[in-house]
Amino acid sequence: VGASRRVARDATRDATYASGLATLESCVEAEQFDRAMMEELFDVADAMERVRPGAPESTMLQGYLMSTLFYEPSTRTRLSFEAAMGRLGGGIVSTESAGEYSSAAKGETLEDTMRTVEGYADIVVLRHFTAGSARRAANAIGKPLINAGDGPGQHPTQALLDVYTIRKEIGRLDDFKIALVGDLANGRTVRSLASALTQFNNVKFYFVAPDVVKMKDDIKDLLTSKGIEWEEATDLAAVAADVDVLYQTRIQKERFANPEDYAKASGKYIVDRTIMDALPKSSVVMHPLPRVDEIVVDVDDDPRAGYFRQAQNGLFIRMALLKVLLRV
Amino acid sequence: VGASRRVARDATRDATYASGLATLESCVEAEQFDRAMMEELFDVADAMERVRPGAPESTMLQGYLMSTLFYEPSTRTRLSFEAAMGRLGGGIVSTESAGEYSSAAKGETLEDTMRTVEGYADIVVLRHFTAGSARRAANAIGKPLINAGDGPGQHPTQALLDVYTIRKEIGRLDDFKIALVGDLANGRTVRSLASALTQFNNVKFYFVAPDVVKMKDDIKDLLTSKGIEWEEATDLAAVAADVDVLYQTRIQKERFANPEDYAKASGKYIVDRTIMDALPKSSVVMHPLPRVDEIVVDVDDDPRAGYFRQAQNGLFIRMALLKVLLRV
Amino acid sequence: VGASRRVARDATRDATYASGLATLESCVEAEQFDRAMMEELFDVADAMERVRPGAPESTMLQGYLMSTLFYEPSTRTRLSFEAAMGRLGGGIVSTESAGEYSSAAKGETLEDTMRTVEGYADIVVLRHFTAGSARRAANAIGKPLINAGDGPGQHPTQALLDVYTIRKEIGRLDDFKIALVGDLANGRTVRSLASALTQFNNVKFYFVAPDVVKMKDDIKDLLTSKGIEWEEATDLAAVAADVDVLYQTRIQKERFANPEDYAKASGKYIVDRTIMDALPKSSVVMHPLPRVDEIVVDVDDDPRAGYFRQAQNGLFIRMALLKVLLRV
Repeated sequence: VGASRRVARDATRDATYASGLATLESCVEAEQFDRAMMEELFDVADAMERVRPGAPESTMLQGYLMSTLFYEPSTRTRLSFEAAMGRLGGGIVSTESAGEYSSAAKGETLEDTMRTVEGYADIVVLRHFTAGSARRAANAIGKPLINAGDGPGQHPTQALLDVYTIRKEIGRLDDFKIALVGDLANGRTVRSLASALTQFNNVKFYFVAPDVVKMKDDIKDLLTSKGIEWEEATDLAAVAADVDVLYQTRIQKERFANPEDYAKASGKYIVDRTIMDALPKSSVVMHPLPRVDEIVVDVDDDPRAGYFRQAQNGLFIRMALLKVLLRV
Repeated sequence: VGASRRVARDATRDATYASGLATLESCVEAEQFDRAMMEELFDVADAMERVRPGAPESTMLQGYLMSTLFYEPSTRTRLSFEAAMGRLGGGIVSTESAGEYSSAAKGETLEDTMRTVEGYADIVVLRHFTAGSARRAANAIGKPLINAGDGPGQHPTQALLDVYTIRKEIGRLDDFKIALVGDLANGRTVRSLASALTQFNNVKFYFVAPDVVKMKDDIKDLLTSKGIEWEEATDLAAVAADVDVLYQTRIQKERFANPEDYAKASGKYIVDRTIMDALPKSSVVMHPLPRVDEIVVDVDDDPRAGYFRQAQNGLFIRMALLKVLLRV
Repeated sequence: VGASRRVARDATRDATYASGLATLESCVEAEQFDRAMMEELFDVADAMERVRPGAPESTMLQGYLMSTLFYEPSTRTRLSFEAAMGRLGGGIVSTESAGEYSSAAKGETLEDTMRTVEGYADIVVLRHFTAGSARRAANAIGKPLINAGDGPGQHPTQALLDVYTIRKEIGRLDDFKIALVGDLANGRTVRSLASALTQFNNVKFYFVAPDVVKMKDDIKDLLTSKGIEWEEATDLAAVAADVDVLYQTRIQKERFANPEDYAKASGKYIVDRTIMDALPKSSVVMHPLPRVDEIVVDVDDDPRAGYFRQAQNGLFIRMALLKVLLRV
């Protein structure tokens, strides 16, 4: 029974890859979402933003259970998913130490763990340290799964919330210019965002990064192959004057062998009052957070400082995904 | 007030030991459940299986709170209990590190901790590393308690879910044959199951274990004293051909001083395609999980592979116990 | 937008300091509560005690989310807050290891963390190891915050539940005598309680402490400056015979360099049968818990042993605060 059910499911899954939200079975990779699916999801997220405590919508998922199975701690991501479920009245069973999960320690496979957990919950949110784990896990079970990050692999809800934030902040997803700033070599976030934005029309990219953490060729080649305009730049103020979206990222200390190299790289492109003065009035500053000092705190009160709204958009996107995947 | 209430409660407790579900106050030892109580509980569990998200039954325990107080981590057990409460709309306050619970570290007794926690919750689920803790804890409070395992002591919900699984899978609890396979010396699960099954008629046991972890005399003597047939066997395929239930268990590495002894013991009795071919059509393979390689993965898709359904039955049994103990 | 909103909020906050529950924005310091506000809060707490599972009041906070953000573990306090939210039907997103919160580890400020979390939840409960953190956190966000202890700083809900317990147990907050016993030098609890009780009339204090942990001059001076009677005493039985409230505390081992000094101090003032015989019939024994052996277990069944009821009053006070701060 289990086998035939799962085989049928896998076949369906291939068929639904980018074939519309109504048949979406899991959220494993950002590439599952084509433009139409993103726009449809964003409309659901807009509705989620209007859910108020005590209103009927706030009990939409009453009686449903989500299991958050985290093999490595990521408190921010976990809280965001659990808040999303809670805002819709759903229940949560949660562990932040699935890696030490006594069963995993005893030699249980990820697939066995997943099949046990699917017996308890209606949907599973998985965080794992190994790329590809989310796909393996989704294939093992007959219930929807959301990938909350699988190591150097995917973190699709981050990409979705970033695109959603651009739509909300500047009002469109075509015909705009975006600067990606900071660690472009290692940042999973900016790489995924660039990839996701290839689905929209007339987007121009600026890459502004210290030499040691420049955007890699694979993304540049992808953009070029799709006829998308991009350029590398070094004058952040000049770039700022020309963009609709300034996406800043943190330079990660742990990437540098030498503390002086880190200090030089991390201090090079700071978003401060001067940059904000250059930035057009209707643009937005984004950042995946946490922020250290690559955006100065003075800037937080500027209406264009969108990074805390961006974090909150993660909540709405995750609420929307839960609703869609649970078919409620 | 507290004292007289507790004295009265203890008196009642003795009186209700095996006197029916309606007066059951706590679930501490498997021996509290006679055959009639088990059957009654299993009927409730059957109803629990039909509770659907959004249906009125799914909010049966709305407003009730369960405290899961775990002095040692057991994520699988904790998630199962929390899912059971969540499926019925109840709330959860949970800790997986009660051992480091600041109060315990400061010298607070288990009884004091329990009396504090009973002030917050309607029912307590306790996991402890010391045998007898669950009884002490249940005696300290005026609210129901469920023992989720107290060290080498009891883990009554495991025994109940095992018996329940047999009833569901083969349709009866009398007149059947069961093989207990693997580590029969140390496995709390198989020992409890054997003990629980003495309440039913015409059950025959086969014990199939490597020499170093054979079933101990106490269980054999118990069966003999009750006139229950049992035998030790070494040919798993031959036994498989004759049973209704094949209950496989994991050989625990940590029981062996010598890695070669472990390898020899753990490799001796594997459930694979050959064993499945020998097994009758209407039988079931059970395993308390986690499984390492004592059941090969190929077997998972066989309809008789019941171990993931068995894990899920734990959910229904725990839902049933919560309903019964909270008198809802 | 964020900035102007926060500026407006801060102005309001100053204006509401001790100006009535209806405009209370956060619960950061015990001094925010004047006598009238305490009495009003206690009336709400009385109503909370009558909330039953399944009754309409038990879903009062349905759809609301509380985030418990603990930078150090305090399981008892966390469970009490989460039970309070759960008893009113609210949802919880919780972390007990916010100190290792990956974002904090990466250099995120407390203010940034708070602004992210306020995007998820309707109310935040913060436990931190640094005095003043709760005020900083409350100022950073536009949603209510409850201080669940900030290091050597404040723990206002403990002070409130202590005063509430006195009102419930002896029926009044004026015209009574209280003995504070044990570690009066380091105990945050007794110091806060003494300070809070200065708002009531005709309260007399006895301080009964081993020499090394005597009540400090600041509290004595405060009482004297307000014309409040206090005296130091060494004969616990004699004091017991004269008081309405005997508030015992634990002598903390870690305060003593020398184990013999600790043994001598901790054994000096024990509440036992003899002390209970001296204590008037209508009085109450309180203790903030956990208790080691400064109150003998024999005494627990005496109707005047109020410490477990006191712990439960913490639940009612926290339910009341949640209701008040969420304006439901």
